[in-house]
Amino acid sequence: MNSSITKLFNIKYPIVQGGMIWVSGAKLAAAVSNAGGLGIVGAGSMNPDVLKEHILKTKSLTDKAFGVNVPLLYSGAEEQINCAIDLGVKIFFTSAGSPKKFTDYLKKKGAVVVHVTSSPELAVKCLEAGVDAIVAEGYEAGGHNGREEITTMTLIPQVRERISIPIIAAGGIATGSAIAAAFALGADGVQMGTRFLMTKESSAHENFKNLALQALPHSTQIMMRSTVPVRLFNNQFSSDIKKIEETYTGEELKKKLIEHLGKFRAMNGMHKGELEQGELEIGQIISLIKNIPTVAEVMKELISDYQKTLSRLPVKL
Amino acid sequence: MNSSITKLFNIKYPIVQGGMIWVSGAKLAAAVSNAGGLGIVGAGSMNPDVLKEHILKTKSLTDKAFGVNVPLLYSGAEEQINCAIDLGVKIFFTSAGSPKKFTDYLKKKGAVVVHVTSSPELAVKCLEAGVDAIVAEGYEAGGHNGREEITTMTLIPQVRERISIPIIAAGGIATGSAIAAAFALGADGVQMGTRFLMTKESSAHENFKNLALQALPHSTQIMMRSTVPVRLFNNQFSSDIKKIEETYTGEELKKKLIEHLGKFRAMNGMHKGELEQGELEIGQIISLIKNIPTVAEVMKELISDYQKTLSRLPVKL
Repeated sequence: MNSSITKLFNIKYPIVQGGMIWVSGAKLAAAVSNAGGLGIVGAGSMNPDVLKEHILKTKSLTDKAFGVNVPLLYSGAEEQINCAIDLGVKIFFTSAGSPKKFTDYLKKKGAVVVHVTSSPELAVKCLEAGVDAIVAEGYEAGGHNGREEITTMTLIPQVRERISIPIIAAGGIATGSAIAAAFALGADGVQMGTRFLMTKESSAHENFKNLALQALPHSTQIMMRSTVPVRLFNNQFSSDIKKIEETYTGEELKKKLIEHLGKFRAMNGMHKGELEQGELEIGQIISLIKNIPTVAEVMKELISDYQKTLSRLPVKL
Repeated sequence: MNSSITKLFNIKYPIVQGGMIWVSGAKLAAAVSNAGGLGIVGAGSMNPDVLKEHILKTKSLTDKAFGVNVPLLYSGAEEQINCAIDLGVKIFFTSAGSPKKFTDYLKKKGAVVVHVTSSPELAVKCLEAGVDAIVAEGYEAGGHNGREEITTMTLIPQVRERISIPIIAAGGIATGSAIAAAFALGADGVQMGTRFLMTKESSAHENFKNLALQALPHSTQIMMRSTVPVRLFNNQFSSDIKKIEETYTGEELKKKLIEHLGKFRAMNGMHKGELEQGELEIGQIISLIKNIPTVAEVMKELISDYQKTLSRLPVKL
């Protein structure tokens, strides 16, 4: 078992780098693929020209398999998908929308399709839509989050009991120990966002990376439950959201939140390093991360930590 | 490793039954201890007379070690502690309050003291207070919950890196696979509430157990974040809370919530089986549980599932 993921993508280790807006461009994706995992270009924050540039650059930096992540909630999703297909991309991770929307289309183009889910029920819908694998992402994860608030610990076994296609666990995973835990729970592979955000090759701004190094266990929070739930690093922007959420209710709350959100907050925060007024999406596990190594160093450490973890597990209870 | 928990309590398996108000009396505690785990009498819902009766009954039903859980947020905590000490109880789990409050006192009486924490920082305070072990309980857990919303997956490794005394993982654990996951993350033992609630020996009402058998993955929710966060099974009572939370803010919200809560809701729900108007505290993992076996059957299944899980883990990544 667990070889299903490496076979599906033709990679060495069952480790996928999560597609992250403003953070996962060509440099990160290529580094992960070159280190034996599956690198993912996060198309969510890219217009077709930028996406094209990143796909071509990834190809120039690695001859290994890589994928593109397309969040379906943005209006440019179809254009992004077609751009990637035209450039020969064969692995698609779709998220934040219905798996029915593009799976058929992508399969007909010969692509491997993976959809990101936050609930066991949606995992079944992914299976019905014909995806090749799913990412099951728990409440711990950074960025957009499921309304059901199902944690990785309870999500993975409940997805496993419903579907037999490969499951990639995500949310709260940044070490080899957590990979072992995810496998114990029934996953065939893992997806890591935050751990790869904190590498030399990610395009998160240095300010953001350095701030994140100081994270405490409660430095992230789910905000905007009344509109689109998202896990953010605590800063002035998120404090202001909290104040709004504590002051307004109903439609007025939604209106105030949309006003406050404005535009370019995520770009300003994660990519340009505006630490107080920008939006900083990151996972709860950030506080376990104490360094900003290269991707190759991360991968080496993951493999060795997994091994150590296995050797210290009691043989029986 | 992991033998630290069995040695500390003088038990066979590193499995603790969580103290649950209205659910964990003598019958459940004795059954768990007799099956090789650590049974816990949940004192939170008991006045000293009732607690005395349950402790004496537990002693009559088992000659194995068992403990008493005392939530410190109730006014009767000191009386409960003294009652248990007078009856020779030697293992105390304290929760929902400061570990400094009773640890010294209990240690001087020769007791083993364990405190329940929901954050790595509080775990350090427990260590400083002189406890023998801690329960690190994640966001998945039923009933009262930490404000930090740290999940089991991210909590356990962050507690592990801070303290070297034994860690008992809780929240989202109901199978041998999850025990293996908890050990991989760095725990030495596990505490399970919901799995033991769903046994023949628990004193949860039959109505509640039967309703819980039908649970879906999103059937529980954290409610009352503005006062005391608690994970509840969705019913009319919790829908009403949600409505109040969506209508009021600030001090008015708190007032309305306290009014709505009223009295005896937990007893009426969990113990008397009032499924719509009662308070039903239960963990998120409930939807993975499909049967109501005896405690002995649960323990046997846990041991065997742990073994199977270990044998299917890939030897290397």
